[in-house]
Amino acid sequence: MNREGILVVISGFAGTGKGTVVKGLLEKYDNFALSVSMTTRQPRPGEENGKSYFFVDKETFEKTIEEGGLIEHACYCDNYYGTPKAYVEEQLKAGKDVILEIEIQGALNIKKMFPTALLLFIMPPSAEELKRRLVGRGTETPEVIDKRMRRAAEESEGIDNYDYIVINDKVDQCVADTYSIIEAAHMRPKRNMNFINKIRHELNEISKGE
Amino acid sequence: MNREGILVVISGFAGTGKGTVVKGLLEKYDNFALSVSMTTRQPRPGEENGKSYFFVDKETFEKTIEEGGLIEHACYCDNYYGTPKAYVEEQLKAGKDVILEIEIQGALNIKKMFPTALLLFIMPPSAEELKRRLVGRGTETPEVIDKRMRRAAEESEGIDNYDYIVINDKVDQCVADTYSIIEAAHMRPKRNMNFINKIRHELNEISKGE
Repeated sequence: MNREGILVVISGFAGTGKGTVVKGLLEKYDNFALSVSMTTRQPRPGEENGKSYFFVDKETFEKTIEEGGLIEHACYCDNYYGTPKAYVEEQLKAGKDVILEIEIQGALNIKKMFPTALLLFIMPPSAEELKRRLVGRGTETPEVIDKRMRRAAEESEGIDNYDYIVINDKVDQCVADTYSIIEAAHMRPKRNMNFINKIRHELNEISKGE
Repeated sequence: MNREGILVVISGFAGTGKGTVVKGLLEKYDNFALSVSMTTRQPRPGEENGKSYFFVDKETFEKTIEEGGLIEHACYCDNYYGTPKAYVEEQLKAGKDVILEIEIQGALNIKKMFPTALLLFIMPPSAEELKRRLVGRGTETPEVIDKRMRRAAEESEGIDNYDYIVINDKVDQCVADTYSIIEAAHMRPKRNMNFINKIRHELNEISKGE
């Protein structure tokens, strides 16, 4: 059965480890394609252009918006983030589940444009643990960490808008849980109408013949 | 985290092997409780009273309806089938996922009374394969098999009302898929509001302290 790709939106507070979860999904399973976002923020150590993000300046970003080249874009912590359209559409058509790792404002914009998108929110086991992870990352100043914690408090109000939450306590379990959710979504009747209609037709043919 | 039990309704055409799938779930995982239905139909060879069904006469069945002792009941192939209420409520309260193996009319009645119930429809890979399994079972006359195939054609119109379909091609895969769907359902935000509200509260407390 040729199955249609699902647009999977993965969000989570900064520091939840959602990047690691996405990496785990891509390494362990072969039905995923990762959408690389475009951003105006500065690369962090180790981040590669075209792999982590497409790093562009503000002018290039705004030109891409004007040309209709982004599915969604949003401003977060004074930087633009957006999702290039062409790659996502190609991969979905090819049957791949396309993962977008974006923040909450972008996620809700996606859901408006693609009502069948699956919205997952990766949660830390506790707020204390979130702070420990942010501090442990060692890439942000204490001021930025405080800003991210306040942002997390704000973002937490929007979790109800997501289809699923996944707790990232142990990363392997979180990857497995995320995979289960996506596989389950493929088994929705509305994603299998060709198969259901085929069986209906066959059953009617057999019943008529008796 | 104490999680709340989910009422899992499993339906499927007669002969799809849903009984085997349910048996697989109960054997492989320990978070399930099986609801035993009450029926007025005759036991098939090997079926035990109180295990496969509570086999009762029509008078007893109708008395149980009057006393409000059933969650739902329906008439199928000239026999009554119903779900005793007390056991289901006890097990859900204890955190068990309760499996009801019932036909489509009963399933839709359940969904009206329990909107959070999860409705799964087990599908054969094809109508031909369904007929092969019914014939192979060797327990029904050709007339009864024809009746079941016509009934399957009718029932197939209602599949859209289910939350998920699961194809029973290889039984182990079908059991694993069914388990994934149920585990995913536990990760819906509305089933985790205590946890979400706890994190919200903690994040606000930490943010205030900074």
